[in-house]
Amino acid sequence: MSGFMVWRAAQQDRVEQALSSWVAADVPAGLGLAMRYAVLDGGKRLRPLLVLAAGEAVQGDGAAALRAACAVELIHAYSLVHDDMPCMDNDVLRRGKPTVHVRFGEAQALLAGDALQALAFELLVPDDGSMPPALSAALCRQLALAAGATGMAGGQAVDLASVGLSLDQAALEAMHRLKTGALLQASVMMGAATAQVQAGVTRELSAYGASLGLAFQVVDDILDVTTDSTTLGKTAGKDAANDKPTFVSLMGLQNAQAYADALLDQAHAALNRSGLAHTDTLHALADWVGRRTS
Amino acid sequence: MSGFMVWRAAQQDRVEQALSSWVAADVPAGLGLAMRYAVLDGGKRLRPLLVLAAGEAVQGDGAAALRAACAVELIHAYSLVHDDMPCMDNDVLRRGKPTVHVRFGEAQALLAGDALQALAFELLVPDDGSMPPALSAALCRQLALAAGATGMAGGQAVDLASVGLSLDQAALEAMHRLKTGALLQASVMMGAATAQVQAGVTRELSAYGASLGLAFQVVDDILDVTTDSTTLGKTAGKDAANDKPTFVSLMGLQNAQAYADALLDQAHAALNRSGLAHTDTLHALADWVGRRTS
Repeated sequence: MSGFMVWRAAQQDRVEQALSSWVAADVPAGLGLAMRYAVLDGGKRLRPLLVLAAGEAVQGDGAAALRAACAVELIHAYSLVHDDMPCMDNDVLRRGKPTVHVRFGEAQALLAGDALQALAFELLVPDDGSMPPALSAALCRQLALAAGATGMAGGQAVDLASVGLSLDQAALEAMHRLKTGALLQASVMMGAATAQVQAGVTRELSAYGASLGLAFQVVDDILDVTTDSTTLGKTAGKDAANDKPTFVSLMGLQNAQAYADALLDQAHAALNRSGLAHTDTLHALADWVGRRTS
Repeated sequence: MSGFMVWRAAQQDRVEQALSSWVAADVPAGLGLAMRYAVLDGGKRLRPLLVLAAGEAVQGDGAAALRAACAVELIHAYSLVHDDMPCMDNDVLRRGKPTVHVRFGEAQALLAGDALQALAFELLVPDDGSMPPALSAALCRQLALAAGATGMAGGQAVDLASVGLSLDQAALEAMHRLKTGALLQASVMMGAATAQVQAGVTRELSAYGASLGLAFQVVDDILDVTTDSTTLGKTAGKDAANDKPTFVSLMGLQNAQAYADALLDQAHAALNRSGLAHTDTLHALADWVGRRTS
């Protein structure tokens, strides 16, 4: 295995264990079970890995980075739970399992998503004195902005409003920069926030996160038409079926792949400009986003 | 008008104006409009008033208290939006207007609620240096705990699970201490957090908030059977129709009223024990909870 694969597996394990300890089962009336079902044993953990790798790149506070990594993943997990609900995408399969509302009912899914969002912020403010309050506050602000109306939730609203419309590439990008890009970029920036870094470094890491975030979505659109549901662990061909504009429908498959590659080149270039010494893992994560098959 | 009524009207105005400036309309794809519809021009603003009154009682940071007041109200507003959705209470009337999902559709209602929760935390961490980071962090933690699985969302899960069951009074109280009590109590405690206060004062304010929070719910149950929908601004008789246990169904109307009065007496007594000099408004808020007709 490459060094990156070893690192990735080890960090995925750490994140899984941390999430399992922080998303408690002994919460009233089955809510904890629904929350754990939504969060545990699933996904690539790309966002947590970005937080942790960015934290390592700036040689930041490792314990704080782990909390930030899990907080970002909880936001991501809650968004999937709500997004899968009948009034949104009405999806029954996620990470190879029945979606939360199929397994636990719609009302419990709604509440589990809501509670996961609250828990994300709770994680960022430990009461054991282990995180400087200024860092807690900064991370809460970054996460709130990335998750809310000017980030992920706003992007989902644009997505809803764009079904059946013929968006141009600029509009499609603007939507995805909010819907998935904001949280991916915030993952990098929250990792970076675990140390004091110069404004120039922050700027390049932000550029890395933005390019990687958009590349992630372009690859997602490619996988949606080239991969079957079993491999994806979610319903393939969904965007076309829902008449949603995608990078593939707009540019064609070949151009979309070339665009993803160009975006990832931009991500690598931004990292190189940052002047940081320990960016191997961030580089490897960009490669991984480009090569992923699910 | 009494001094309290003057204070209340002035603070309700301040909160309305602050919410109007912080819940922006220019958010993508109508999401901002749905969020404003959910938040503005409605409700008694009991939670913000509790934050502000507690802040005044401890002579705390007024600007911080206003942010905390609005943050708590955003959590309350989001919970109503989600609670009214078809998969939960399926309610069409709230504050005398069509509910958010009736007006904007279910998907937009879901997103508006999600974005309001994120915005609540964003408000607690201004980027203009106007709030000490330690206070931002403490308020974020209090709000997250009150809103999440160990607070409001957990209480809603218990509520869901208890439809058709014959809860005893202890179980009903435990549910309401989470479902509505946690956020009401947090309102008091977040106001108190805007100053440094002694542990004994915190303990008594916490007791005040807990008693007032439960009394609020008992009165709610009484109003549900004694008041018509127009006066309430929401659907009356809902609990009985949904076969939900209430304090009235459990104790009878007269005993429920006596219990509300006893709880409010406890709230007043806790305030008196606090030794704080400026508790008139908190006393008046407890009276208001007991006297309210909607």
